[in-house]
Amino acid sequence: MTKNTIFRSLIAGAFLCFSGWAVGQPGGFGRSPQINPDKTVTFRINAPNAQDVKLSVQSEKGPVQMVKGERGSWSVTVGPVKPDIYPYSFIVDGIQVMDAGNMYYFPNERFKGSLLDVRGDSSLIHSIRDVPHGTVTYEYYPSAEGTTGTVLVYTPPGYNKNPGVKYPVFYLVSGTTDTEETWFKVGKANLILDNLIAEGKAKPMIIVMPYGNIEARIAEQKGGLKPADPADRESAEAIARSKTFERDLVDNLIPYIEKNYRVIANSENRAIGGFSRGGGQTLRTGFGNMDKFAWICCYSAYLSTTELERDFKKVVGNPKETNQKLKLLWVSVGTEDRLYNPTTEFINYLKAKDINYKSLITSGGHTWMNTKAYLANTAPLLFK
Amino acid sequence: MTKNTIFRSLIAGAFLCFSGWAVGQPGGFGRSPQINPDKTVTFRINAPNAQDVKLSVQSEKGPVQMVKGERGSWSVTVGPVKPDIYPYSFIVDGIQVMDAGNMYYFPNERFKGSLLDVRGDSSLIHSIRDVPHGTVTYEYYPSAEGTTGTVLVYTPPGYNKNPGVKYPVFYLVSGTTDTEETWFKVGKANLILDNLIAEGKAKPMIIVMPYGNIEARIAEQKGGLKPADPADRESAEAIARSKTFERDLVDNLIPYIEKNYRVIANSENRAIGGFSRGGGQTLRTGFGNMDKFAWICCYSAYLSTTELERDFKKVVGNPKETNQKLKLLWVSVGTEDRLYNPTTEFINYLKAKDINYKSLITSGGHTWMNTKAYLANTAPLLFK
Repeated sequence: MTKNTIFRSLIAGAFLCFSGWAVGQPGGFGRSPQINPDKTVTFRINAPNAQDVKLSVQSEKGPVQMVKGERGSWSVTVGPVKPDIYPYSFIVDGIQVMDAGNMYYFPNERFKGSLLDVRGDSSLIHSIRDVPHGTVTYEYYPSAEGTTGTVLVYTPPGYNKNPGVKYPVFYLVSGTTDTEETWFKVGKANLILDNLIAEGKAKPMIIVMPYGNIEARIAEQKGGLKPADPADRESAEAIARSKTFERDLVDNLIPYIEKNYRVIANSENRAIGGFSRGGGQTLRTGFGNMDKFAWICCYSAYLSTTELERDFKKVVGNPKETNQKLKLLWVSVGTEDRLYNPTTEFINYLKAKDINYKSLITSGGHTWMNTKAYLANTAPLLFK
Repeated sequence: MTKNTIFRSLIAGAFLCFSGWAVGQPGGFGRSPQINPDKTVTFRINAPNAQDVKLSVQSEKGPVQMVKGERGSWSVTVGPVKPDIYPYSFIVDGIQVMDAGNMYYFPNERFKGSLLDVRGDSSLIHSIRDVPHGTVTYEYYPSAEGTTGTVLVYTPPGYNKNPGVKYPVFYLVSGTTDTEETWFKVGKANLILDNLIAEGKAKPMIIVMPYGNIEARIAEQKGGLKPADPADRESAEAIARSKTFERDLVDNLIPYIEKNYRVIANSENRAIGGFSRGGGQTLRTGFGNMDKFAWICCYSAYLSTTELERDFKKVVGNPKETNQKLKLLWVSVGTEDRLYNPTTEFINYLKAKDINYKSLITSGGHTWMNTKAYLANTAPLLFK
């Protein structure tokens, strides 16, 4: 960038964006993120008044110190980075800041992250390829306590061209603080399915991506205070809130989808899956509604032995019936995931109880990089 | 919030969000934004290390100083605020920061804003009402230079229930640095139309919301450097880039929409409208393709007399033919808009040339609050 261009783009930024009064545009002093030919990545932020700036990117094990350059621009180069999509943000004197140069964001109730997309030398399973694309539709549906629910619905390529065809449905739930957009914007569920379908690996299916925090929606729409998330995922509060989600899904969302989309409405053609809190909601909703879901995919989550013995005795106590009903019970976790140990205990419990399951243990942590891979591994198994 | 709840929610935030390493969650110390019963609004951010924190909210004329309280939490109360949706952010030592307590964001290439939604005592035209809802669909389409384009498509309530019905189409373009999502997330085009259709005020129509910055998409997908936006909207560069947009719309997007949606494919059933840069693109594309668009809606934008005389002589020099072709030429602007003067000149020029137009001059500036109102005023006129 020439000085003149920089000046013009700063002026344009201040002038065009927030009507009338200037806001510093940290992206003005150079590209960020800049993916270099060797797959190292350079991040930049203009923060002339800051005492300390760190980069927090999920390709690295922890925060990375950034270095102040001339004119108050901080930068750092990390990597080479394995091709994938990584959430990141800057930590400016302790405050989480998105990358002003990047328009791709992590939809979340709380943290504000940008997305680093490092492409591979060959296309990845979540890349946009030159294949037929499905669409993702924002829907409103009548949800709990008279509120209006929001949900995203992926329909596979050709859905609108094949009015006689009905499809199976995969309900796919995001994690704590995520929104109904996270499986779309971060998880790339639509592109992963587009690619798997084009390769003939997955059956064309509808994917329904709900918002997992029903209490927050009710509070927002009725004017109450949004409740904090339960700190302990095994707590009574966490279980009660999972139940609210389950009731909304079963009583409100599934009927809405089945009324408005061409779906095959039986358990053999209905799957549920989820990441983190969504994985817990998946197990509870699946085990609690064995007549409704024959496919259960749990990504980076578990249920405790205590809860299984107490609330799902019918499922875990009758392996023959359970194995007959469930076409797939999938459990995935990374060895660096903070939930690795309880998830392993969960898997061992299933094994001890003679409940059929498939598991995939990978490297990596409690991340959307991993959960994307789990989706790519499980979608080909569904509805077959 | 009790101390214990705060502690738990901070722990949960650090624990659940960015895998493994803690990030301060500025929203942890209290609700933000908090809309009080008298429609004043309290904003809060936890920034213990900051020297200076301001609030930048479009309900106010300029940045508002925030005050540091105990434990490093800054807050300020503004208003009473007129019910509407206002973009806002915090300015922490000169850096733009979103509100961590708020999940509603302003989709933009550059600035990172949150959205303040102050509801009215009675429902506003952009509110979610208990009426039939249309849907908004993310589509991929084959765009310029072999790239994959992204576009949002609103279909009105009942679209999927009425397979024999064809609809008119309104192409609706956002402003500089906005994305294809901005008319949806900030402009609430879908809810405004849902409500107008339910009241019998607007005809059911499809709304197509493209991304306006085609050069940036090409650069991104082909690995080039995204070009800075032209500083001057009358410059040769601005006009050339508007032409790229026009060609993509006419050659790629319209054919895609007409192939994939049930539309009435003629000029009487095709409208184009836009805000700011999108308004300029609207005028250039509309005047340049009079056989394609009989409805042109320009919100907070204009063309210069020089450009009109040079590039659109056929349109402005033949008022009789132009007036016959155009069912509506609409121009709106606010008296505090920085483009008020050139827009007024544009209107006066149309008048002097005997070109039929309708105009609505309002108070307010170059804002999404105004452009939402312009959409609500023009949509009822279309296709009638």
